[in-house]
Amino acid sequence: MKGLLKGDRVVFGADAVPELYETLHYGRLKGDRLELALVEAAYLLDREKIAVEADGKSLDFRAFFIRASQAQEYFEVKYIVYRDLRERGYYVQPGVTDFRVFPRGGKPNMAVSRHFVHVISERKPLPMAEITGNLQAALNVRKEMVLAIVDEESDITYYGVKAVNMAGSNTPPEVRPQPGTSTLLEDRVVIWDREISGKLHTLGFYGNPLDEKRLQISLVEAAYLIMRNLLEVADTGDNVMSLDAFVARAKAFEPDFERKLKVYADLRDKGLVAKTGFKFGSGFRVYEQFESIDKIPHSRFLVDALGDDHVFHLQALSRSIRLANSVRKEMAFAYEKNGINYFSLGRIKL
Amino acid sequence: MKGLLKGDRVVFGADAVPELYETLHYGRLKGDRLELALVEAAYLLDREKIAVEADGKSLDFRAFFIRASQAQEYFEVKYIVYRDLRERGYYVQPGVTDFRVFPRGGKPNMAVSRHFVHVISERKPLPMAEITGNLQAALNVRKEMVLAIVDEESDITYYGVKAVNMAGSNTPPEVRPQPGTSTLLEDRVVIWDREISGKLHTLGFYGNPLDEKRLQISLVEAAYLIMRNLLEVADTGDNVMSLDAFVARAKAFEPDFERKLKVYADLRDKGLVAKTGFKFGSGFRVYEQFESIDKIPHSRFLVDALGDDHVFHLQALSRSIRLANSVRKEMAFAYEKNGINYFSLGRIKL
Repeated sequence: MKGLLKGDRVVFGADAVPELYETLHYGRLKGDRLELALVEAAYLLDREKIAVEADGKSLDFRAFFIRASQAQEYFEVKYIVYRDLRERGYYVQPGVTDFRVFPRGGKPNMAVSRHFVHVISERKPLPMAEITGNLQAALNVRKEMVLAIVDEESDITYYGVKAVNMAGSNTPPEVRPQPGTSTLLEDRVVIWDREISGKLHTLGFYGNPLDEKRLQISLVEAAYLIMRNLLEVADTGDNVMSLDAFVARAKAFEPDFERKLKVYADLRDKGLVAKTGFKFGSGFRVYEQFESIDKIPHSRFLVDALGDDHVFHLQALSRSIRLANSVRKEMAFAYEKNGINYFSLGRIKL
Repeated sequence: MKGLLKGDRVVFGADAVPELYETLHYGRLKGDRLELALVEAAYLLDREKIAVEADGKSLDFRAFFIRASQAQEYFEVKYIVYRDLRERGYYVQPGVTDFRVFPRGGKPNMAVSRHFVHVISERKPLPMAEITGNLQAALNVRKEMVLAIVDEESDITYYGVKAVNMAGSNTPPEVRPQPGTSTLLEDRVVIWDREISGKLHTLGFYGNPLDEKRLQISLVEAAYLIMRNLLEVADTGDNVMSLDAFVARAKAFEPDFERKLKVYADLRDKGLVAKTGFKFGSGFRVYEQFESIDKIPHSRFLVDALGDDHVFHLQALSRSIRLANSVRKEMAFAYEKNGINYFSLGRIKL
C-alpha cells in the first residue's frame, strides 16, 4: 500500500482501510481516506508494510525519517517512545496528548485507553503548571497520566503522575506559650525549657536536641508553633516576637519562607509530621503516622514546595524521583489550587 | 576556674593552664594566659568545668550562648559540630579551617591532626572554587578535608572531599569517517550505517540503537567522534558538518555544550567510557573498565561538569551525593586547573 506524505500526515486511499485500519488498527478515518501520523508511518515503513511517496518519488526509511523530523518538532523523540510501546505489545493512538495507550490486549475503537502518555526530551524545561494541568485533564476522563522522558542517548524513562491525598494521625503536643522559654539565634531557635523541649520533641518530633536539656528547632517549626499559639519566641534582646516579625526575620535566610511555611502548616494541620528533607535533597520528609520519638516510623513522602511558577529541569526532577524511590519514598510536589494540593511522580514499568 | 569573655575569646589567667591546657587540652597559650574559643568555653560551661564573666557579671549557659552567637557568625552551627566531635571522643582544635581534628586517641600538641573540618550551614551557598581551594590547602599539608553540613534542624552530615585520578582502559573503536553515514536531526544524530553503528555501540558503548540497523548517538558523543576524526556527520541537507558548525548547532540545545564536551573528551581520552547520567540526575555516569557491550561493568563514578564559577546549593549537593552513594557510585565534579581535574564528595562516618 502506498501513502502520500502531506505535512505531518501520511494519507492513504480507501483501499488501505481494511488492512491498516480494520485489521492492524493504525490511523484515523477522514471521509473515505485513512490518515497516519508520522510515527505510525515510520514504524510501518521500517517493517515494510507500506510505501510512502512525496513529490512523485518513493521515500526510503532514511529519507522519510529526515523529512518527518523536519515536519514535526521532536519527531525522533516521539518515534522512540512510539516504537518502544508498540514493540512491547501495546496499541497506541497518537493524539493531542502525544499518545493514548490501551491496556494490554486492548485495541483502538474496541477498548478504552488507559494511559495518557506525554513525551518530552530531557533537555526541555517542564513547567509545573503543565504537569498539574495535564494531570487534571487526565483525571477528568479517568485516565492515568504518564510522562515519557527521552534522554540525550535516547533511553526512555516512564514516570506515573498521581494526585496525592495527604492525611496523618499526629495530634498537637499539649504545650502553652510561656515567656522566656525560647530565643531566635540567627537561623534557628533554641528552647531553653526542659519540659517544653521534651514534649515538642517526643510527641511532635519537633527539632533536634542541642543537649540533654535544650532543643533546637528550625525556623519553619518555630513559625508554625507561634502561628498555632503553642510557643513564645523572643529575640536576643528578650523581646517577644510576633508571627509577622518572626517571618520577616526568617525571610532574610530563606526568601521562599512564606511558601514553605504554608505547605508545612498544611501538612501539620492535616496530622502529618514534616521534618527537613535535607539529607534527601528535598524540602521535607513526611510521616503519615507518628506517635512518639521512641518509635519513629518510615517516612512515606519527600515533599518539595517549589511554587506554582516553578519550571522543572528534567535532570534535577529525575534525580529527585530516583533518590526518593531508592529510599522507598514517594516524591511529591505541593501546589496551590483552592488550598494546598499534592501530586507525586514515580518511575513505572509500563 | 573563671574566664573573661573578650570579643570572640574567653581569657584565663596562668592558674588555668595546668588543668585546662596541659591536662584537658583546651585552648591556646598567649604569653602567660590561656585563650579559649567560644565553642570550647560553651562546651566547658555546659559541663560546669569553668565559669565565665562579662561586664563584672557571671554568665549562665543561656546568657553565654546568646552572647557568643552575637559575637561570632554561625556560632550555634559550629557549636553543634564541635560538641558532636567531642562527644564522640575526638580532640578538636579550633582554627582557621574551623576545626582540626585529631585521630582517635591523639591529643593536641602531642599528635598530628588528621582532618580539616569545615563547618557550613545548609542554607549557605558554597562556591566550587572554595571547595577546590580548601582541598588543595589540605592536600598540601597531607590532611583529609571534611565538610560538616548542619541542616536547618541541626542534624550534621559529614562529607569527605577527595582528589580523584581518572584512568580507564577503553580503546577507540576502529572506524573511519565515511560520507553519508550519519545525520544530525534536531538534538541527536542518527547513524544509518549498520557496520559503523555496530562497532561504535559494541566496543565503545556509544549511543543507543534506534532499531536493529541504526544507532542514535548524543550531541556530545557525535562532537567527540568528529573531533577525533572517527565519524562524519551531515546536516539534513546532506552537507558535511565541521566540528565548529556542529558545536554551534549543539549549543542551541545546550548552552554549556563546550564545557561538557571538554570534560567528556578528557574522560574518553583517558580511556574511560562516559554515558549520560540522566537517570541519576547527573551529567555522566563513568565506567573505568569497558571492553564490550556484552559485559557492561558497574559504572564507578557520576560526574558533573558544572563550571569553575559554579556555586553549590547544599540541598542539591546533598541530593547528588546521596543518590550516587545509594547506587554504589562516587559523586565526582570536574574543574579546570592545568587541564581537567576531578574531586569527589562522599558521606563519611567520622
